[in-house]
Amino acid sequence: MTIKIGVVGYGNLGKGVENAVKFNKDIELVAIFTRREPAKLKVSSNTKVFSVDDIEQWKDKIDVLVLCGGSATDLVLQTPKYAKMFNVVDSFDTHAKIPEHFNKVDKIAKASKTVAIISVGWDPGLFSLNRMLGNTFLPDGKDYTFWGKGVSQGHSDAIRRIPGVKTAKQYTIPMASALEAVRSGKKPNLTTRQKHRRECFVVAEEGADKNKIEQAIKTMPNYFSEYDTTVNFISEEEFSKNHLGMSHGGFVIRSGTTSQNMNHLIEFSIKLDSNPEFTSSILIAYARATYRLAKEGQCGCKTIFDIAPAYLSQKTSEELRRTLL
Amino acid sequence: MTIKIGVVGYGNLGKGVENAVKFNKDIELVAIFTRREPAKLKVSSNTKVFSVDDIEQWKDKIDVLVLCGGSATDLVLQTPKYAKMFNVVDSFDTHAKIPEHFNKVDKIAKASKTVAIISVGWDPGLFSLNRMLGNTFLPDGKDYTFWGKGVSQGHSDAIRRIPGVKTAKQYTIPMASALEAVRSGKKPNLTTRQKHRRECFVVAEEGADKNKIEQAIKTMPNYFSEYDTTVNFISEEEFSKNHLGMSHGGFVIRSGTTSQNMNHLIEFSIKLDSNPEFTSSILIAYARATYRLAKEGQCGCKTIFDIAPAYLSQKTSEELRRTLL
Repeated sequence: MTIKIGVVGYGNLGKGVENAVKFNKDIELVAIFTRREPAKLKVSSNTKVFSVDDIEQWKDKIDVLVLCGGSATDLVLQTPKYAKMFNVVDSFDTHAKIPEHFNKVDKIAKASKTVAIISVGWDPGLFSLNRMLGNTFLPDGKDYTFWGKGVSQGHSDAIRRIPGVKTAKQYTIPMASALEAVRSGKKPNLTTRQKHRRECFVVAEEGADKNKIEQAIKTMPNYFSEYDTTVNFISEEEFSKNHLGMSHGGFVIRSGTTSQNMNHLIEFSIKLDSNPEFTSSILIAYARATYRLAKEGQCGCKTIFDIAPAYLSQKTSEELRRTLL
Repeated sequence: MTIKIGVVGYGNLGKGVENAVKFNKDIELVAIFTRREPAKLKVSSNTKVFSVDDIEQWKDKIDVLVLCGGSATDLVLQTPKYAKMFNVVDSFDTHAKIPEHFNKVDKIAKASKTVAIISVGWDPGLFSLNRMLGNTFLPDGKDYTFWGKGVSQGHSDAIRRIPGVKTAKQYTIPMASALEAVRSGKKPNLTTRQKHRRECFVVAEEGADKNKIEQAIKTMPNYFSEYDTTVNFISEEEFSKNHLGMSHGGFVIRSGTTSQNMNHLIEFSIKLDSNPEFTSSILIAYARATYRLAKEGQCGCKTIFDIAPAYLSQKTSEELRRTLL
C-alpha cells in the first residue's frame, strides 16, 4: 500500500514534488490541484489535474496534501484552510510570521484531528535543525548562517522595479573572508557587509541611463545599501543563457567552547543545482512523516523540531540501525 | 525542578559529562559511580562519589544514568544491567554489534518500563543522523564518511604492541584529494587508500631497531597495510608536549541527483579540540530526551533516529520556533 499524496499548486515546487515521487516508491502522487484551467495545465507525469475548487471531494482519497504555493499570499490562507480536511505539509518561509502561522494551523488541525507539518525545506528546515542542534550540543557558543551562492528572488524583484530595467537577477554570495574567520574558531562579530556581498546582472531597456540604474540599486535601503554590491549590465541573450538557473546553497556553523581552550566547530552546508527540486525532496520525506503521525492518531501542527528522524525514511528502523547508524 | 543524572565511570567521558552539566542548568549531576575506591577518586566538581556496587540504592533518586564506559567490555554488560533499574544513555560504538545490543537492551527496558537511548555521540550519532537524512532527502546518491584529523585509539594500541615501541599515537587523516573529488559532485568510487592516510608518532625503546618497527607498522594487515602510512620517531619529551591531545573531527557528505544535471551536495563536518568533551555534550542532551520520554510513559530502547529534536533542547518548543526555526 502506498501513501497517497496530492499537490496544490504547479509551480517550481509542485513540479519538484512530482519529480521527487519517482525516488520514493512508497509514495504515489494521485492528483495535482490548480487554480488554473485543469485541462490546459501540461504536467510532466501521468498524474491527473483537477481544479482546486473540487478538492473537498478528495477528502478520503488523499493521505497528505503537499502545499506548493508561496508563503505571502498562498500558504498563509491555504494551510489553515486545507488543514480542516487534510493532513498537510507546507514550506512556509516567512521566518517572523512562523509563530503566528503555527498557532493558527495548530488550532485548526487539533480541532479537525489532522496533522500539519509547517515550514519544511532548508531554511526554515534543515538549517533550522542544524542551528538548533548546534545550540543544544554547544550551549556556550555562537551561530552563523550564510546563504548562497544563490538567487534572491526578493532582491531580483526589487531591481526589476527600477525604471529602465527590463529584467534582472541578484546573487547573494557569502564572503570567503567571513567563512574563514568563523572556521578559525575565533567567534567574530560580523557586520551585514562582512557576511555577504550582492552581485546583480541587469538587462537595461534600450537608451536607459545605466549609471542611474546602478546608483539606484547600490543605494536602495534594506536591500542593497548595507552590502558591497556589484552591478553587471548584460544582454538579453546572455541573461537567458546564464541566469535562468535556480542553484542555491549555504552554510550553518556553530562555534562553541566546552572548557578552557577546548573549542569545537559544527558545520552544515548544502550546494544545490536546483533549489526547488531539493526543497521538494525534503517536502516528500515530511509528507511521509505526516502520514505516519496521522496513522498513530496524532494531530496538530508540527515543525521539523517535532519529528523523529526515523519517520522520514523509506527504510525500517531495523534497517536504519543496521545500515546507517 | 532539575533532571537528576548519575554517571557510571569516571574516565574521559565521565569527566566530560561532569563538565557539560555546567552549561545545562536544568540538569544536575547527583552522583558519580566508580569501580575504584570512591574515597580515592578525585573529581573536578562537588559531586559525591559512590561505589558502583551500591547503585541500586539510587533507583528512585536518579532520573537518568549516563553510562561512560567503553563499548567492548563495559557497555555491552552495563547497559542491559542498569536498564533494569534506571533510564539510561550510552555511547555504544561498535557499529557491527549495534543491532544485537539494541535488541538485548530493548527487551529489558520494555520489561522494566525504562527508557534506554544507545549509541549516542558523533559516530555513531550525529554522523549517523546526517547519513540517514542525506539518504532520505537524496535517495539517488552516494554517501561518504571521512574521519579525522584525529587519534585512532585502536591503531595507537596496535603500534604499542610492537616490540621496541615505548608509546605511540596514530592520526587518521582524510585525503584532501578525496574530499575535493567528492565535493565536485562526481560521485567517485574511492578505495580505502584514497580516502584516508595514517600518520604515526612513535617513541622507541632505547636501542630498538627503528627500521624494523617502521616495517612492522606499515605492513600490519587490517590496520595499516591498506593505507599510505607515515612513521615519525620522536622523543618522549616531544610526545608529551604535542601528542597527548584528544582532538578529532570528520565529514559526512551526501552527493545526490534529482534529475538530469541537477546534482546536490549535503555536507556535515565537525572539528573538535576535545573528542570526549564534545561527545559528553551530546550525551547530556540525550539524557534530557531520555528523561522527557520516560515522563511521557514511553519505554524501550531508542537510537538517535527515534528522538524528535525538540526533546534535546533546554528551550521550549515555542522558543525554538521563535528563535531558531
